[in-house]
Amino acid sequence: MKNNLLDIPVLSSADSHFTRQLEGRLDRRMLVDSKVTNAVAEILAAVRSRGDAAVLEYTKKFDHRDAGSLKDLVISRDQLQMALDRLPESDSVALRHAAERIRAYHEKQKQSSWHYQEADGSVYGQKILPLEKVGIYVPGGKASYPSSMLMLGIPAQVAGVQNITATVPTAFDPDNAGSNLVCAAAALAGVSQMITIGGAQAIAAMAYGTETIQRVDKITGPGNIYVTVAKRMVFGEVGIDMVAGPSELTVICDGGTNPDWIAMDLFSQAEHDEQAQSILISPDRKYLELVLASINKLLPAMERQEIIRASMENRGMLIHVASLDEAVQISNSIAPEHLELSVADPESLLAKVENAGAVFLGRFTAEALGDYCAGPSHVLPTSGTARFFSALGVYDFQKRSSIISCSPVGAHRLVRTAATLARRESLTAHAKSAEYRLQDLD
Amino acid sequence: MKNNLLDIPVLSSADSHFTRQLEGRLDRRMLVDSKVTNAVAEILAAVRSRGDAAVLEYTKKFDHRDAGSLKDLVISRDQLQMALDRLPESDSVALRHAAERIRAYHEKQKQSSWHYQEADGSVYGQKILPLEKVGIYVPGGKASYPSSMLMLGIPAQVAGVQNITATVPTAFDPDNAGSNLVCAAAALAGVSQMITIGGAQAIAAMAYGTETIQRVDKITGPGNIYVTVAKRMVFGEVGIDMVAGPSELTVICDGGTNPDWIAMDLFSQAEHDEQAQSILISPDRKYLELVLASINKLLPAMERQEIIRASMENRGMLIHVASLDEAVQISNSIAPEHLELSVADPESLLAKVENAGAVFLGRFTAEALGDYCAGPSHVLPTSGTARFFSALGVYDFQKRSSIISCSPVGAHRLVRTAATLARRESLTAHAKSAEYRLQDLD
Repeated sequence: MKNNLLDIPVLSSADSHFTRQLEGRLDRRMLVDSKVTNAVAEILAAVRSRGDAAVLEYTKKFDHRDAGSLKDLVISRDQLQMALDRLPESDSVALRHAAERIRAYHEKQKQSSWHYQEADGSVYGQKILPLEKVGIYVPGGKASYPSSMLMLGIPAQVAGVQNITATVPTAFDPDNAGSNLVCAAAALAGVSQMITIGGAQAIAAMAYGTETIQRVDKITGPGNIYVTVAKRMVFGEVGIDMVAGPSELTVICDGGTNPDWIAMDLFSQAEHDEQAQSILISPDRKYLELVLASINKLLPAMERQEIIRASMENRGMLIHVASLDEAVQISNSIAPEHLELSVADPESLLAKVENAGAVFLGRFTAEALGDYCAGPSHVLPTSGTARFFSALGVYDFQKRSSIISCSPVGAHRLVRTAATLARRESLTAHAKSAEYRLQDLD
Repeated sequence: MKNNLLDIPVLSSADSHFTRQLEGRLDRRMLVDSKVTNAVAEILAAVRSRGDAAVLEYTKKFDHRDAGSLKDLVISRDQLQMALDRLPESDSVALRHAAERIRAYHEKQKQSSWHYQEADGSVYGQKILPLEKVGIYVPGGKASYPSSMLMLGIPAQVAGVQNITATVPTAFDPDNAGSNLVCAAAALAGVSQMITIGGAQAIAAMAYGTETIQRVDKITGPGNIYVTVAKRMVFGEVGIDMVAGPSELTVICDGGTNPDWIAMDLFSQAEHDEQAQSILISPDRKYLELVLASINKLLPAMERQEIIRASMENRGMLIHVASLDEAVQISNSIAPEHLELSVADPESLLAKVENAGAVFLGRFTAEALGDYCAGPSHVLPTSGTARFFSALGVYDFQKRSSIISCSPVGAHRLVRTAATLARRESLTAHAKSAEYRLQDLD
């Protein structure tokens, strides 16, 4: 039976090789195979020059779907609404509950224009507007992800985006419950049109526009390595949300949570794919052994046990530390996408958390609740990028313009400063442009 | 004398070729020469593998400066402070005035953590923190830009960033007023260390770290094409603010502003470099002629007249439109970095503005005032990217983590929804992870 036990390393922060072991296992190098880069560059160029025809060819080649026209792959707003209307009761209740909660949370994130007036009558501020056209890439392939449709679409909808294009790589099948649920989610999220295409060709179509697909201003949503590389390549011509890698979870536990719960949380992360990463950190060595026992006990009953096993053996870790404080320090260096603080006093640990996409506090807050319906988006920074990327939010779908309105007196007060600095920068036309405004006042 | 007149096109929106003419002149294709891409890739790889030594080699090769050690190019916090303390009175007054105003504006942008509690005791929110380490790239070369140091550094400082690394391509010269002013600006902006390097090698050093330069979490600031390409290439391993191109200004004028003022505003944009773009839109055809006359009258007295002439002839435009409303529509399609509304009622036009980095309202608000001391950052989206990028702000130096804290009852209320959706996505470990939390409650 020994051979069936999971081979997952147990590290100790007291080990002199610990940092090296941790970094090796995190594997944060963003090395992209030049074959992938070249393939993506070719797809982008083809879609840019040949539009619909190129998108159809790649959809046939990679997704094995043959459509006569790209228009056949467009699911209209009416069709999305129809899927929502026809949803089975239990699906409808769950989807609407999740959508309502996600919407309520994001309403709190919405930013509004602001300004202030100075005594001389000058006004300064910022005008904040929704983006006009956005694209959301909902991953898929083997399964459908209605939750991702909600998590990407609702923040855009709350921002006030009027034109939301969604792409999903999976063919629409009206007899498939998951497929209908994705469409229904799109309807709830205010998606204008959904197109059943994926990969780099979907990113190219949204970035450049084709005969059938309108060019968007920003593309959001995670995908496989081709999608990620394509998003990086089009960045600058369109906005993108972030550069995403495999999903990950770090759990800090004081030893007081039912080990089966934690094992299942680690599985929930690992079942995504073989490169997903599940990490447990605890100051209680005995507890790590208990969780390991739970892992081995529960694994055989898991439907996706092959993926879970591969993921846990490839990238999983159990880490023994001296204290909860040290656990947070290590977590800050990991900068995990998801961080569970499964401890008696999560608030005091939260105060020390610096880098994490989302933090789940307390023993009852399973990370999976956040994946579906707690409220915040599950589109989060991965691979240590929580050091600088943030959870997807309404702010990602808003643009901000500075507002400057100088009264004659207000302008007068700024001229000398502007002109002095401009001349030090050898920009004399700048200086004169400011000084000309004095003519009418003097 | 005819040959000395500026050759700047006057377009009319009534012309059937207008859109094509406008788009041709805007030239929004982001086509980067593969020679540049390859050169940058080589620099990035060299700095990643050989650190300080590679940075020194490229600084010698491109900037013609030969340092024995990269440490010789580091200006410490103490040296920056010394430059500030020794500043001539008029420079000091101007710099401090600008810094104060920029700080006051950005204080209003700072976002704080927020949360709300539901009736069942669950708490949701967002923890907002400053980034830990940021890099600011202050462009230079021929001139020094203390204003850019303030505009990049102060938003980071207001956000609470503790470790700010600034790079400037220009050698530090204690006998040069501009050089001292850049150092003094760095001191006021809370810069931790300044390094006199530039180009792709500076971006690489900040993105990967070297023996002397600490790796940063995010790099902000505009630069030449090598800097821009380098920023795009390191994006994902570090954050970046935006992808910047040449600077531009669009002025909408109703014909009521002194034509000399507008001519000088267009010059102030054009004097940046040969690829800068100055556009004037007016419904008053006579006024366009008056401004053209002012341009030709004033140009010979400009110190940077060669650059201004090249820029205006390469990329400048005067556009005649039917109405101010049409002027705003065209401006929205341009999505200019800077937009002047030099009209009698700028507020009513502002309501129709959708895409612009910064908007300058009224006849007295010269764009140059915003470049130095009005308050908002002059680091703004260019080349039409105001459709999705925003003015640099405090938010660029903050990171946001979602907070989810479910009470036992709160978790219970979410479990069925999460489990239903998870099973539809074939993610059964997710479903079970949520359901396990019910065990203690049932």
